[in-house]
Amino acid sequence: MKKVIKNGTIVTATDTYKGDILIENGKILMIGRQIEVDGAEEIDASGKYVFPGGVDPHTHLEMPFGGTVSRDDFETGTIAAAFGGTTTVIDFCLTNKGEPIANAIQTWHDKSKDKAVIDYGFHLMIGEINEDVLNELPTVIEEGITSFKVFMAYKNVLQADDETLFRTLVTAKELGALVMVHAENGDVIDYLTKKALAEGHTDPVYHALTRPPEVEGEATGRAAQLTGLANSQLYVVHVSCADAVEKIAEARNKGIDIWGETCPQYLVLDISDLEKPDFEGAKYVWSPPLREKHHQEALWGALKNGQLQTLGSDQCSFDFKGQKDLGKGNFTKIPNGGPMIEDRVSILFSEGVKKGRITLNQFVDIMSTKNAKLFGLFPQKGTIAVGSDADIVIFDPHVKRIISAETHHMAVDYNAFEGMEITGEPVTVMSKGEFVIKNKQFVGKLGTGKYLKRAKYGEL
Amino acid sequence: MKKVIKNGTIVTATDTYKGDILIENGKILMIGRQIEVDGAEEIDASGKYVFPGGVDPHTHLEMPFGGTVSRDDFETGTIAAAFGGTTTVIDFCLTNKGEPIANAIQTWHDKSKDKAVIDYGFHLMIGEINEDVLNELPTVIEEGITSFKVFMAYKNVLQADDETLFRTLVTAKELGALVMVHAENGDVIDYLTKKALAEGHTDPVYHALTRPPEVEGEATGRAAQLTGLANSQLYVVHVSCADAVEKIAEARNKGIDIWGETCPQYLVLDISDLEKPDFEGAKYVWSPPLREKHHQEALWGALKNGQLQTLGSDQCSFDFKGQKDLGKGNFTKIPNGGPMIEDRVSILFSEGVKKGRITLNQFVDIMSTKNAKLFGLFPQKGTIAVGSDADIVIFDPHVKRIISAETHHMAVDYNAFEGMEITGEPVTVMSKGEFVIKNKQFVGKLGTGKYLKRAKYGEL
Amino acid sequence: MKKVIKNGTIVTATDTYKGDILIENGKILMIGRQIEVDGAEEIDASGKYVFPGGVDPHTHLEMPFGGTVSRDDFETGTIAAAFGGTTTVIDFCLTNKGEPIANAIQTWHDKSKDKAVIDYGFHLMIGEINEDVLNELPTVIEEGITSFKVFMAYKNVLQADDETLFRTLVTAKELGALVMVHAENGDVIDYLTKKALAEGHTDPVYHALTRPPEVEGEATGRAAQLTGLANSQLYVVHVSCADAVEKIAEARNKGIDIWGETCPQYLVLDISDLEKPDFEGAKYVWSPPLREKHHQEALWGALKNGQLQTLGSDQCSFDFKGQKDLGKGNFTKIPNGGPMIEDRVSILFSEGVKKGRITLNQFVDIMSTKNAKLFGLFPQKGTIAVGSDADIVIFDPHVKRIISAETHHMAVDYNAFEGMEITGEPVTVMSKGEFVIKNKQFVGKLGTGKYLKRAKYGEL
Amino acid sequence: MKKVIKNGTIVTATDTYKGDILIENGKILMIGRQIEVDGAEEIDASGKYVFPGGVDPHTHLEMPFGGTVSRDDFETGTIAAAFGGTTTVIDFCLTNKGEPIANAIQTWHDKSKDKAVIDYGFHLMIGEINEDVLNELPTVIEEGITSFKVFMAYKNVLQADDETLFRTLVTAKELGALVMVHAENGDVIDYLTKKALAEGHTDPVYHALTRPPEVEGEATGRAAQLTGLANSQLYVVHVSCADAVEKIAEARNKGIDIWGETCPQYLVLDISDLEKPDFEGAKYVWSPPLREKHHQEALWGALKNGQLQTLGSDQCSFDFKGQKDLGKGNFTKIPNGGPMIEDRVSILFSEGVKKGRITLNQFVDIMSTKNAKLFGLFPQKGTIAVGSDADIVIFDPHVKRIISAETHHMAVDYNAFEGMEITGEPVTVMSKGEFVIKNKQFVGKLGTGKYLKRAKYGEL
Repeated sequence: MKKVIKNGTIVTATDTYKGDILIENGKILMIGRQIEVDGAEEIDASGKYVFPGGVDPHTHLEMPFGGTVSRDDFETGTIAAAFGGTTTVIDFCLTNKGEPIANAIQTWHDKSKDKAVIDYGFHLMIGEINEDVLNELPTVIEEGITSFKVFMAYKNVLQADDETLFRTLVTAKELGALVMVHAENGDVIDYLTKKALAEGHTDPVYHALTRPPEVEGEATGRAAQLTGLANSQLYVVHVSCADAVEKIAEARNKGIDIWGETCPQYLVLDISDLEKPDFEGAKYVWSPPLREKHHQEALWGALKNGQLQTLGSDQCSFDFKGQKDLGKGNFTKIPNGGPMIEDRVSILFSEGVKKGRITLNQFVDIMSTKNAKLFGLFPQKGTIAVGSDADIVIFDPHVKRIISAETHHMAVDYNAFEGMEITGEPVTVMSKGEFVIKNKQFVGKLGTGKYLKRAKYGEL
Repeated sequence: MKKVIKNGTIVTATDTYKGDILIENGKILMIGRQIEVDGAEEIDASGKYVFPGGVDPHTHLEMPFGGTVSRDDFETGTIAAAFGGTTTVIDFCLTNKGEPIANAIQTWHDKSKDKAVIDYGFHLMIGEINEDVLNELPTVIEEGITSFKVFMAYKNVLQADDETLFRTLVTAKELGALVMVHAENGDVIDYLTKKALAEGHTDPVYHALTRPPEVEGEATGRAAQLTGLANSQLYVVHVSCADAVEKIAEARNKGIDIWGETCPQYLVLDISDLEKPDFEGAKYVWSPPLREKHHQEALWGALKNGQLQTLGSDQCSFDFKGQKDLGKGNFTKIPNGGPMIEDRVSILFSEGVKKGRITLNQFVDIMSTKNAKLFGLFPQKGTIAVGSDADIVIFDPHVKRIISAETHHMAVDYNAFEGMEITGEPVTVMSKGEFVIKNKQFVGKLGTGKYLKRAKYGEL
Repeated sequence: MKKVIKNGTIVTATDTYKGDILIENGKILMIGRQIEVDGAEEIDASGKYVFPGGVDPHTHLEMPFGGTVSRDDFETGTIAAAFGGTTTVIDFCLTNKGEPIANAIQTWHDKSKDKAVIDYGFHLMIGEINEDVLNELPTVIEEGITSFKVFMAYKNVLQADDETLFRTLVTAKELGALVMVHAENGDVIDYLTKKALAEGHTDPVYHALTRPPEVEGEATGRAAQLTGLANSQLYVVHVSCADAVEKIAEARNKGIDIWGETCPQYLVLDISDLEKPDFEGAKYVWSPPLREKHHQEALWGALKNGQLQTLGSDQCSFDFKGQKDLGKGNFTKIPNGGPMIEDRVSILFSEGVKKGRITLNQFVDIMSTKNAKLFGLFPQKGTIAVGSDADIVIFDPHVKRIISAETHHMAVDYNAFEGMEITGEPVTVMSKGEFVIKNKQFVGKLGTGKYLKRAKYGEL
Repeated sequence: MKKVIKNGTIVTATDTYKGDILIENGKILMIGRQIEVDGAEEIDASGKYVFPGGVDPHTHLEMPFGGTVSRDDFETGTIAAAFGGTTTVIDFCLTNKGEPIANAIQTWHDKSKDKAVIDYGFHLMIGEINEDVLNELPTVIEEGITSFKVFMAYKNVLQADDETLFRTLVTAKELGALVMVHAENGDVIDYLTKKALAEGHTDPVYHALTRPPEVEGEATGRAAQLTGLANSQLYVVHVSCADAVEKIAEARNKGIDIWGETCPQYLVLDISDLEKPDFEGAKYVWSPPLREKHHQEALWGALKNGQLQTLGSDQCSFDFKGQKDLGKGNFTKIPNGGPMIEDRVSILFSEGVKKGRITLNQFVDIMSTKNAKLFGLFPQKGTIAVGSDADIVIFDPHVKRIISAETHHMAVDYNAFEGMEITGEPVTVMSKGEFVIKNKQFVGKLGTGKYLKRAKYGEL
């Protein structure tokens, strides 16, 4: 059945205009003034913005970490994403050294199948490069996994050495994949961590103090230089500080093909949150960690001037009780990560657009379009244009609301933005022309979200 | 009467998709698949790109310079622009010290009225700031002239001192105007020029040798720093060299609100052209001058990574015979400028998109969208979206052709790209829904191009 | 008569060692252990440092400024200098447009002759460059004035335009002179000053607020770039802020021949001093002005890592009562400058060496050696070496004392460091082997200080 | 017996003057004009320069490498050093993982004892940091080894990981040692090397092509950033390229305590030497490798402006026949290094001072004084001052000569500068007041060179 979204203000990464959108077979068929189609369901969007659905390029759903598993899975996670205006997620498929990549990917298909309410794709973690891995990668690309993630931190766990990073960059260039990097110097962190523990420092704030901005700046610069040398392409995930922004800007100005993502937590929260009493600081343990407040200005500035391009959630949620508290008495045992998939879009709108830090079109680009383009999903995802999937968010830009764990839809028992007032809220969200959220109610169906084969890097 | 552009590949600064465009009353009414409207004229665009009409932010039509007048006026100039795929120009209105600005603007209205075949706006040159000027500027803004140009070069003629530049920046910020700057250190140029002449160096190439990249770099940096201090906004016209790009990038990274334009000549031609024998070098006299070839890479790189944002023509054409040759025996008497309005879009497409230096969407942004946005014309101009003016270019991306003065439509007797083979050509061009160029033939009417009141800077 | 300085710790820009110094005919004849010479006067320096006498490269003695004249002349100024451990000053000879330079130099000879108690040289101010000036300059060089000063500030008074600056750079290169520049953008200052006054802001602190660091940074960068283009040599006087340091460092790293001087006031005082009540802020009016405290760290860092090389006093003293108070009710009428000639060396020792910011050898280089080298006085001045003038300071590094106008030897009624405790004091000071200060008493004779013909730049 | 060096031009890092030097008991007793001492031996230095003996901070004498041993030992090496004007060397003591450091040091004492003709000290290589190592290091410092070397290259052989580097930096700060770093990214080199071999590239030039400047720039920047984070001190050995210079300059400007050394080969030779036929390129295999010629300008510029401070030889000589040819058919088997200890000083004089790239005083600083200061040998070594060791070079600045293996005194069968004409030559060289070279003849005695206990970093 056809649908028409009427009278909204349609916003893309370039345009802002009044218009109606006609949807058929899950696709956008027509955009115009006063579209009238017999028998079509009309959705009134007057007074509302109509955005392309958000594309979240960075989630960890049901992911094992430090002996536990992240709380939100493809069911609760994608439902929460939809509530927040996100209609596509790209999740990280973890691999294990010595095991076939195919198995890891199958594990991720198993986790997600029949659960997701919005479409999803996978990134592939690269922990080692050897003949077996090199043999499997062409198939991986063929199956639509066109981005490889390398960790420069988590020594003795996830961390890859520079040779692995460099080989991944070389290989990705050949195969058409985008390399993603967690850029922190894991060696230095390892030393500082052991030193802090040896000195009896066990509180959550030491998570931040043992991985200062310099270790992120250094690793970011290193990855950028290796990318330049390999003539490859790089996407730096979760940039948290001015030190890393500076390195990315420097590399971009030298013509290196490098992109940067930040996350809502780094734009809004800061290191003082880690000092909250009663172990509450543990709620704010991310890697990289929250920074001194002045770094936020650098991040917003970089989003505005284009040195950072995207916003990911780095969704990786753990309950405060039962999971985060594994780290009581030893901050290194606190599971890293937090619930962020739901508020990503709204935070960017409220703190970015409403406060004049970025334009409305930049907002769409940052939370959706650029992510779709970089990760081979465009124009199927990431825009409102004729022929694209009808992944659409009708957004009330005026409503004020308070973020709270009591009202959020993620599976965890706290929200890092608890009590924060923001402006703007998704009212109705469609995936491929079907309602997932309608008038703020979940009306979707598990399993309607499908796996997305993504195009190679640079192919549009 | 309604028109439908059928089966084209529509390209905006964000999107690329197949679709039809329905036009009514000069506006885009609807975009979709297989639009059928009774009685509408159908224009077949299959196999073609459909671009928003180009916006040329930098022209000097019928402008007095050095005792002569630029050859193309609002008639020949706008016709040539249309042939080249440009549907809006913003021309520079020169002022004279001590005379009312209103008179200068009236002069420009007189020049343009009943002549232009596409819409146009004006920038205002600021040569001095005093009480009279300050009193007139609010009216200027109200009349839709929302950008002020200051010259840092042409000593004793157009050059303003730093106090004037700084006051213009402060005033522009208050009034909502964008300051444009010709950034070359006129004092140093003046000295080097006098020295060259004193030493008997009179050939055209000395035009370039007496204004080296350093004088542009210095002035660009100075203007950027004054902009930062004034907390104002700046647009650097005709950036020609790596030195200036570096200063703009540095300022942008510091959060200064600064934009940079380059021109086709700097992307393609170089200083060796100035050394052509038989005084032919005079055809290539622009200020800033053509540079050593390696600067081109810096300019392309900056367009790609967003440190430069726009392409202007700096159209200011003079005949080789009768005008350029005023400078025989004294390069300082060669009128500065050249015919560029017609080839701006095609050069960018052929050298940029076809050679993989920029994406197709960046191309649209650089030649049209960003110009419209920066200069208060968006979304009326600069995009293909519902509600926008139907300023549309149907472009054949495959045809190869040779640029030549014999076939161009500008009024001058030479073309700086004579003999160059490029790929791609505008086939049909509409202004406000009416054909100006149809199947490569001019079918427009003088005077249908109207003056555009532009919005203030930052208002979309 | 011979003299032997016994048992001191001799310090040069390189060395620190125990030794005796034998002096004859005003020169250092021998340095060694346990020098015994019959009939020689022995001066005990045990427990003391023995430094080469300070070389102050930047003084304005008896200089007309804003309708008044700086209070210290070549008599009181050089006596105070000697008390402070300085044995050479280079004073600025002001010129007037349209008048022969020879007259200006004669005026300066008249001011200084028979008055100075230590040797002195002159810099020449360049306010304009024309045929007359160019004709006179070779003679100026021959007479030993081998440095030219250009002002980029003081609009309509001392300020030269960029063409004059550039021509001075070109000419200096040809003649072997070092160009000195007062680097502030006078145009912007002029505007900000008029604006402040128009808004009723008349207090001393507005002197600083109307010439922010950015105007110094901009002008410094501009001068550096013009120096590079002219392939010439530049010395930036009185660097006050991080903005300027950054520009100098950038230029030096590009191979430009540029040097930077700072002054004691910028290392120790800050903008808050200008806010002292009862118009006392006027005592702290220098151009460039005192800055926010954090700039001090940049200046010390640059002295340490060699991006700044020298310390000048910018001595230009005015009484608080009767001179500084000309500016009551209008900060622009406050004579710029302060008494600094006496405390320059001690401040650098106490704040620099004693606080670990620079080494002892760097201290000697900064306050003496490098100044002598840059300005063509080395090795006659600026070191303790066989054959050099016996300009020597015996310095007690342990004594603590309070700086105060009540005890200083300058002619003015206040001291900018009033009440500050410092460590270290010159005990005995010799010029050409004769005592000027002996056991903290003045024992010199007016007129024993002689004019110094300086060598060309780069000649050692 | 006393000696007097008569009538020379004495040059230190600061001074240049005529004078005589009186020597007694191996020390400089007095410096002056016309020193006459009964019974003293007079050495005529008229028309000659008298320099402090060179301090070579970087040698590998009799060092095992890749299955062979460097050819020059403490006998031939120090004799050749003396011929070249060097009177102190600091050699690298290699350690083995798991073995006591004391053993390694003993090995080095054994190698050097009774062989050296000039004084020497040791640096200590750090390959790992564990409790055993930490326990030994205080003793190492006490024994006068106050500098630790870490390798970032030679994967699986000498290469330390970042944790080891960081811990070394932290530990060195606590103990008062200077950390030295071989800064190349060994991981990337390892990959590129394996790739080149796999592709059949075995010629010597591939040594350079598989370790491009970027890998040195990256590692240098990384080491500098870790030094800043550790608030420690770093000395970058054998800087070969602009990329590394840039990183050092950047760090120094940020206040990081970092120093840089280059070597004669990088100043004079270039990558084209590696392409010499008949495997002769193997003679030019150093790590880092020789670079494209344009890097030389960056190195000279950095020596001039102080961003690099010292010159080491990186002496590590291997015969062409019998050693270098181990790498025939596989460039990775070519022993890295070359004979450089003898020509270090002369090359710097001829190419630096004579060609106007650095001053005479900078020359002394770079080849001697600064090395002595940084490595805790000053003022015993590194200067000509009363009380210092009489390590003195009498140098003829006018003689022209050709460098050749036929005339050099190193034990190897080739010289990398074979056939190069240079200006200047040491004529007579003293160590602690005794002749080692007299009128170009070796007159020294094995074993007179003694081990030097060096002071902690920063202690003068």
